[in-house]
Amino acid sequence: MTATPSAPLFDRLVIIGPGLIGSSILRRAMLDRGIARELVASDIDPKVCERVRELGIADRVVQDAKEAVRDADCVILCVPVGVIGTVAAQVAPAMKPGAILSEVGSTKVSVINAVLPALASRPDIAFVPAHPMAGTEYSGPDAGFPSLFENRWCLLLPLENTPPDAVARISAMWEAMGARLRTMTPEHHDRVCAIVSHLPHLLAFTICGTADDLADETRSEVLDFAASGFRDFTRIAASDPTMWRDIFLNNREALLEMLDRFMADAQAMADAIRKGDDTIIVDRIARGRAIRRTLIENHQA
Amino acid sequence: MTATPSAPLFDRLVIIGPGLIGSSILRRAMLDRGIARELVASDIDPKVCERVRELGIADRVVQDAKEAVRDADCVILCVPVGVIGTVAAQVAPAMKPGAILSEVGSTKVSVINAVLPALASRPDIAFVPAHPMAGTEYSGPDAGFPSLFENRWCLLLPLENTPPDAVARISAMWEAMGARLRTMTPEHHDRVCAIVSHLPHLLAFTICGTADDLADETRSEVLDFAASGFRDFTRIAASDPTMWRDIFLNNREALLEMLDRFMADAQAMADAIRKGDDTIIVDRIARGRAIRRTLIENHQA
Ligand SMILES: NC(=O)c1ccc[n+]([C@@H]2O[C@H](COP(=O)([O-])OP(=O)(O)OC[C@H]3O[C@@H](n4cnc5c(N)ncnc54)[C@H](OP(=O)(O)O)[C@@H]3O)[C@@H](O)[C@H]2O)c1
Ligand SMILES: NC(=O)c1ccc[n+]([C@@H]2O[C@H](COP(=O)([O-])OP(=O)(O)OC[C@H]3O[C@@H](n4cnc5c(N)ncnc54)[C@H](OP(=O)(O)O)[C@@H]3O)[C@@H](O)[C@H]2O)c1
Repeated sequence: MTATPSAPLFDRLVIIGPGLIGSSILRRAMLDRGIARELVASDIDPKVCERVRELGIADRVVQDAKEAVRDADCVILCVPVGVIGTVAAQVAPAMKPGAILSEVGSTKVSVINAVLPALASRPDIAFVPAHPMAGTEYSGPDAGFPSLFENRWCLLLPLENTPPDAVARISAMWEAMGARLRTMTPEHHDRVCAIVSHLPHLLAFTICGTADDLADETRSEVLDFAASGFRDFTRIAASDPTMWRDIFLNNREALLEMLDRFMADAQAMADAIRKGDDTIIVDRIARGRAIRRTLIENHQA
Repeated sequence: MTATPSAPLFDRLVIIGPGLIGSSILRRAMLDRGIARELVASDIDPKVCERVRELGIADRVVQDAKEAVRDADCVILCVPVGVIGTVAAQVAPAMKPGAILSEVGSTKVSVINAVLPALASRPDIAFVPAHPMAGTEYSGPDAGFPSLFENRWCLLLPLENTPPDAVARISAMWEAMGARLRTMTPEHHDRVCAIVSHLPHLLAFTICGTADDLADETRSEVLDFAASGFRDFTRIAASDPTMWRDIFLNNREALLEMLDRFMADAQAMADAIRKGDDTIIVDRIARGRAIRRTLIENHQA
């Protein structure tokens, strides 16, 4: 945590949707007062608001979003992907001139398309889409923790007309939270995330369903004997259904493309096993290991 | 570890193939001398033999398998699935009358079919197939540890003519290593393992290959941004290629059946995403979570 003799990055920072991601931002910013002088939380659910108060992870909790964003210099939408556009439309008219609007959605092209109309009459608001590549399988305000973003990537997706100064401040905020930054286009973001995150989740949800469909006796034994392979899959599959439905629907194109490629590769593996083609099988297994090794070298494993 | 005033379970126990599984048995049995009075290790690779000597995890190391099994009351084959039959044929003629032959292969129907001919002229040898459901992504004699089997399942697959006394002694050995026991048929075993372990590994290997096939720029970013989803997959995919080739080929039928079911389910998920069918998507995700919850209740997660 940095010593901050100078003014904080933001005077008033508002988090809409203090769930896993939002409450982790709040928790970190409560510890590092160089991020914002005042932290405001807002959630559609009164129980979440109450819980945030109990946890003491915001200076103020204001349930009404329009009310909450008043006089903020930065508003970060931490709500599910499917409602980011709606919430943007709700808060943008109430934001002060020159304020920054950011969001942390797991998909980008459709989220940006959903937010832009809300900003059409507010060209003075600086929109900075971002995606912190960090998370767990838990959700809600109790799930967050201040070190969630430490040493994880945060992807920035500034638009052509996003003022560089706004990007710099959002960058400084994520850096203060320990994240490493990378800038890319929304389209590229959606393809990369489709393969590194969305497809793995789809496969994990699916295999759990496949196991569940097996005859009753086998199913109970599947649960009893879940070897490490299956256990790792179920850990991924424990994530929130609404969040993942939103992600799948909002990154439909890139995800379906990656799934097609994957299905073709799985079919090729099935054919090799059916034919007993050792070379292809070993080659594919060995490639998995090579990727793994690179990950370890990149300190991501 | 049990106090053992009485005679050990086995007088001489021989481990052929002291890799991850074999060396873990040895390590545990070195700590609990109630399992065997004398522990002998044997491996086709002189370097493995040398390493086992250095590690001091056997009382004797005898490279030649026929020589090693002499006068043993129990021989456990811990070699890759694809050579269990060959090694059985090699050692059976040299085993003493009434001795127990066991193995720990990850597939059962084809392994048992490969071993039976070796025992045709030795009906006095008691054959007890087993499968400890424990492992890591590492292999070799350095990878083992004495607590590997603690609280994990060990599946027993006795044949119709396996003497109950031999099953009881192998059971007692695995219980001494901390494992929980379950008996089932080889056919049922292969179906359960196809879904809980073999299919997840096949999917993990495949998705690593799919990622690797992406255009160069995307690939390097896949490695940089591997979110937790993909990282879990690569952990699985780090396993030994020879072992997995053997498993896939030896459990071909059950594995391909489970893969077919899985592919149909993945296709149904893809269709639901394409059509934007919320209900189906959420239902499938929710089933994954339900399975996960049951696993946690069963203390397997
Ligand atoms: N979890 C991850 O791994 C991860 C990683 C990176 C980015 N993200 C993205 O981060 C965002 C939040 O995810 P999360 O995991 O933090 O979810 P979460 O824990 O469920 O938090 C989301 C919060 O937003 C609230 N909310 C929903 N609709 C709202 C609305 N219209 N107005 C105000 N608040 C609303 C939710 O309240 P209710 O509970 O009452 O609905 C909840 O408190 C999502 O866009 C997600 O894609 C997630
Ligand atoms: N790993 C798991 O998660 C797991 C779990 C349950 C059961 N199993 C089963 O346990 C068995 C062993 O697996 P592991 O993971 O322990 O493998 P491992 O660490 O590779 O050990 C196998 C050992 O057997 C040796 N070997 C190979 N062919 C041989 C032969 N013809 N004669 C004598 N020794 C030979 C190998 O030597 P080289 O290295 O020189 O080939 C190696 O030292 C396999 O059948 C596997 O399916 C594995």
